[in-house]
Amino acid sequence: MDGYKGFLGLLVSSLLVGFLSVIFTLIWVLHYREGLGWDGTALEFNWHPVLMVTGFVFIQGIAIIVYRLPWTWKCSKLLMKSIHAGLHTVAAILVIIALVSVFDFHNALSIPNMYSLHSWVGLTVVILYILQLLLGIFIFLLPWAPLSLRAFVMPMHVYSGLLIFGTVIAAVLMGVTEKLFFALSGYSKFPPEGVFTNTLGLLIVVYGALIFWIVTRPQWQRPKEPNSVLLQPNGGAQEGAGGLTVNFSNVDTPDSKLNHEASAKKRNFTADEVGQRSTM
Amino acid sequence: MDGYKGFLGLLVSSLLVGFLSVIFTLIWVLHYREGLGWDGTALEFNWHPVLMVTGFVFIQGIAIIVYRLPWTWKCSKLLMKSIHAGLHTVAAILVIIALVSVFDFHNALSIPNMYSLHSWVGLTVVILYILQLLLGIFIFLLPWAPLSLRAFVMPMHVYSGLLIFGTVIAAVLMGVTEKLFFALSGYSKFPPEGVFTNTLGLLIVVYGALIFWIVTRPQWQRPKEPNSVLLQPNGGAQEGAGGLTVNFSNVDTPDSKLNHEASAKKRNFTADEVGQRSTM
Repeated sequence: MDGYKGFLGLLVSSLLVGFLSVIFTLIWVLHYREGLGWDGTALEFNWHPVLMVTGFVFIQGIAIIVYRLPWTWKCSKLLMKSIHAGLHTVAAILVIIALVSVFDFHNALSIPNMYSLHSWVGLTVVILYILQLLLGIFIFLLPWAPLSLRAFVMPMHVYSGLLIFGTVIAAVLMGVTEKLFFALSGYSKFPPEGVFTNTLGLLIVVYGALIFWIVTRPQWQRPKEPNSVLLQPNGGAQEGAGGLTVNFSNVDTPDSKLNHEASAKKRNFTADEVGQRSTM
Repeated sequence: MDGYKGFLGLLVSSLLVGFLSVIFTLIWVLHYREGLGWDGTALEFNWHPVLMVTGFVFIQGIAIIVYRLPWTWKCSKLLMKSIHAGLHTVAAILVIIALVSVFDFHNALSIPNMYSLHSWVGLTVVILYILQLLLGIFIFLLPWAPLSLRAFVMPMHVYSGLLIFGTVIAAVLMGVTEKLFFALSGYSKFPPEGVFTNTLGLLIVVYGALIFWIVTRPQWQRPKEPNSVLLQPNGGAQEGAGGLTVNFSNVDTPDSKLNHEASAKKRNFTADEVGQRSTM
């Protein structure tokens, strides 16, 4: 692997910063806020930031870069796709519980739901995340989708995956802002809770930046399998070169139609366009 | 150009959504808030959202995609780089005035500065934006930087440009959230101002998503010049293929050393890695 030490340093940094974000969120709710519980009070609400930062930020980030780990390159593509989908599923479950906790809390205290910008952006991105997960499973993990469909959907899958991740971080930062303006009196006097929670916000931004760097370095892509087929959906005269390159869920077909399909498509598809590969 | 109609549709949509975001911000401060002025009151503060959305969101977004406009591909690279840098400079000036307005307002009313997460993330991203602009001008626009330095810096320039743009949008969303929780009584009762400003927030997210899509489509890259030289900084065995590809500020040298330099570098550099090109 090219630049292995650099990759390792960034991977360890991102895991550390991501883990620290989760710890900071726990300290926030346990030390500065009321703690955790499931009783319709603020204790139940507090699961919302804990589960969102754990699932929607930390675990989603790991799921995004999982194809980049060089020691997994010996594993089968199917196994890696299962791990990618599995981590996103775990994240989605935590996100749904996090949503239940805030709706429960609001309903118990007759606080209106869905009035803030945080809630609008947040719920939108939760729905998009679940759609992305289901579409991803049906098109890339299950065996029925033809190669051409996978090649067509892949650029959108990669784009929307990163867009969702970035929007989640924006939604979390809005959530932190909203909570502090709502619940912390004297925020403007630099109380320890304010400084601590602002630091949590910065940690989450740094985590996002590290994941975004790791996933856009072409030299850290999972290498092409020996029997791969290169695809391009529109035959454009592309140089296939970019400052940002993402290829973390390669196209493959699990069945024997591959070679036939591939040669039929090859006239119109080349690798430089979508960075997708077909592996048997 | 491959998919010209699609490009045009997305370009018009993004300009429309970006322009609408600016109009919405103006309506917000002129109709729902106190209006605009420069007197240390809320009227002066109101320049902050107007100039941030105009400069840091709308104009920055245009500056990012300016290399993608196919009717500019006949123009010289130097001209396009000047327009790219010029738009970012205009944005930076508006951003600095926007910062002055909020500090002036705070100081006039003895409101503390820099206590919120919005201000921490916002000021950090302003400093990074100005650094990015200065480094960009010194390395890519002015003629002294060697080809190898440009090739080395380009992936970071592209990455940090998009990271800054995304973080700006997050900071703006936090700013809107902060202002509404601060100044709008009865936000939770779905008042027209709350719904209107939430819609502004969504428009800004959609604008960011459109710019991000346009700039990561490899088929809409500015084509390589005929006398270009392909570069790769680390000789890695890359396929140069990705679901996300950005190449909007190609490496070039303005002087006659190019061919000599380029052939000297060619042993270690190929296009597939960084997507950078050298044009005379």
